[in-house]
Amino acid sequence: MAIRIGILGYGNLGRGVECAIRHNPDLELAAVFTRRNPADLSVLTEGAKVYAAKEAVKKKDDIDVMILCGGSATDLPEQTPEMAKYFNVVDSFDTHARILQHFEAVDAAAKESGHVGIISVGWDPGMFSLNRLYANAILPGGKDYTFWGKGVSQGHSDAIRRIEGVKDARQYTIPVDSALEAVRSGSNPELTTRQKHTRECFVVAEEGADKDKIRETIVNMPNYFSDYDTTVHFISEEELRRDHAGIPHGGFVVRSGRTGWEDEHNHVIEYSLKLDSNPEFTSSVLVAYARAAYRLHKEGQRGCKSVFDIAPAYLSALDGVELRKHLL
Amino acid sequence: MAIRIGILGYGNLGRGVECAIRHNPDLELAAVFTRRNPADLSVLTEGAKVYAAKEAVKKKDDIDVMILCGGSATDLPEQTPEMAKYFNVVDSFDTHARILQHFEAVDAAAKESGHVGIISVGWDPGMFSLNRLYANAILPGGKDYTFWGKGVSQGHSDAIRRIEGVKDARQYTIPVDSALEAVRSGSNPELTTRQKHTRECFVVAEEGADKDKIRETIVNMPNYFSDYDTTVHFISEEELRRDHAGIPHGGFVVRSGRTGWEDEHNHVIEYSLKLDSNPEFTSSVLVAYARAAYRLHKEGQRGCKSVFDIAPAYLSALDGVELRKHLL
Repeated sequence: MAIRIGILGYGNLGRGVECAIRHNPDLELAAVFTRRNPADLSVLTEGAKVYAAKEAVKKKDDIDVMILCGGSATDLPEQTPEMAKYFNVVDSFDTHARILQHFEAVDAAAKESGHVGIISVGWDPGMFSLNRLYANAILPGGKDYTFWGKGVSQGHSDAIRRIEGVKDARQYTIPVDSALEAVRSGSNPELTTRQKHTRECFVVAEEGADKDKIRETIVNMPNYFSDYDTTVHFISEEELRRDHAGIPHGGFVVRSGRTGWEDEHNHVIEYSLKLDSNPEFTSSVLVAYARAAYRLHKEGQRGCKSVFDIAPAYLSALDGVELRKHLL
Repeated sequence: MAIRIGILGYGNLGRGVECAIRHNPDLELAAVFTRRNPADLSVLTEGAKVYAAKEAVKKKDDIDVMILCGGSATDLPEQTPEMAKYFNVVDSFDTHARILQHFEAVDAAAKESGHVGIISVGWDPGMFSLNRLYANAILPGGKDYTFWGKGVSQGHSDAIRRIEGVKDARQYTIPVDSALEAVRSGSNPELTTRQKHTRECFVVAEEGADKDKIRETIVNMPNYFSDYDTTVHFISEEELRRDHAGIPHGGFVVRSGRTGWEDEHNHVIEYSLKLDSNPEFTSSVLVAYARAAYRLHKEGQRGCKSVFDIAPAYLSALDGVELRKHLL
């Protein structure tokens, strides 16, 4: 029998989870839960059930794992501990500064109710975190570097859209090639924020807006842009739609470190992602960890876990012998 | 108290383990066991004990984890199950075709004696295997590629040395850039053995040897060279010593696969290693898994495991809160 997956929240991430389930025959979409009017929601999976989010608890016996597809700012801090009272849950919580308290909240709820919760699943946090951990454990005397991009930053795009006179905008974070090469060389350089990434903005201005003022506002925006070399291009709405509709992303995790009795040998470990669709890739990771949540729960495990706490074999549909035969 | 590590076999790998222990303050070298005369063996760690291999069992109460540093052809198939009767063990068994039976043998011995055995630890098998598994679980509709090099292949170097008229030799396996680029583009190419790697040989010939004949023998050698484009350079003994003394290696694991309702988005996951010293890097992985073996055993786990069966957190000296805070 397939593992029954519930989706809470049907934005880009929720739709990505729905697509990922289609690629995994041992999983099935049990239901989608939405805060919109369920009757207005059209999902991709033929015959899939759609319910109001507030009805979720009533379906607790029909769902093995609930994947929470809300945002980290306000949705997940409430939803994940709440849903962990009734379901095994998986989320992609990515507010780094609040991961410890989120873990504690989900852990308490999941232990009390006898469920498994897996938080901060995706690629960063997620696959990038795993690669940082493995590389740190192998090369304790080393240095970590994470580069993001080339990809669309939703937060930075939103920040531009809030500027007066801006109709729409898309912001790309771009790693600086020379910095990446320096890191790959194993020279362990010290790099400033400005040296690691540049930012490129494509902006649709309202008619008659002061473009120079918009550009100045962007490049000087504290936290978002002022520490970076930022390029601003003004384009038409048609160009934005035609050339910047996708949500690509990716990045690089590099650790270099030394071994040998006198630290005489250098090593570079690099993990990189090149993603056409950030939400669909994140969803694909979520779905693999939903499989793990189901199995861990079946084994009697309880409480909150991160990707660090889960043996890789739990993610795969293959059994131990097949894994050792084909992938080891 | 530090985790007490034993080393069985003091070649390149055993010496690498000794160096890696020095980089991990929570581990200590308890003893080195050798098949040579212990009195003749000079180890790097001041005051470290050296015993005859056959004395190992007598030291079973002084060692938490024994790291087996012998070869996969004849040493490990016997040593790992035998030592698992008395110790938690970690090995780097890499004969792919025999991994299943090796796992069974170690599993039976470790379960019977109440120990943990971790086999096939290193980078391939090991870190490359982990990356194949993670990438397969995330992108089930995809294709795997593994490239090795640029690096020294000990087996191929040995094969050349056995040719009549050859005094010494060093063979490098080199991934073909254009093949790697095709894979990275996400085009999922079909690649033959010849298209993926080339082989470059540096040969010191005996005085008066027939170099043309040596070259022909190398490039036509079945299994080792005949399926590859192979270049042979004759050099002096001094040049070999000066320019080819190291044991560098590395490689690339790439998986590309598609997501989306109609498979409309492509993703490329890449993991790569660039290693100055193949044995020292392998040793560094062995040592991290020795930490895991000790902890798993302390938790009451028993039997054989591969890297697939071990949650990443067990490899790190940091505790769960620190890991979540600094690496997640």
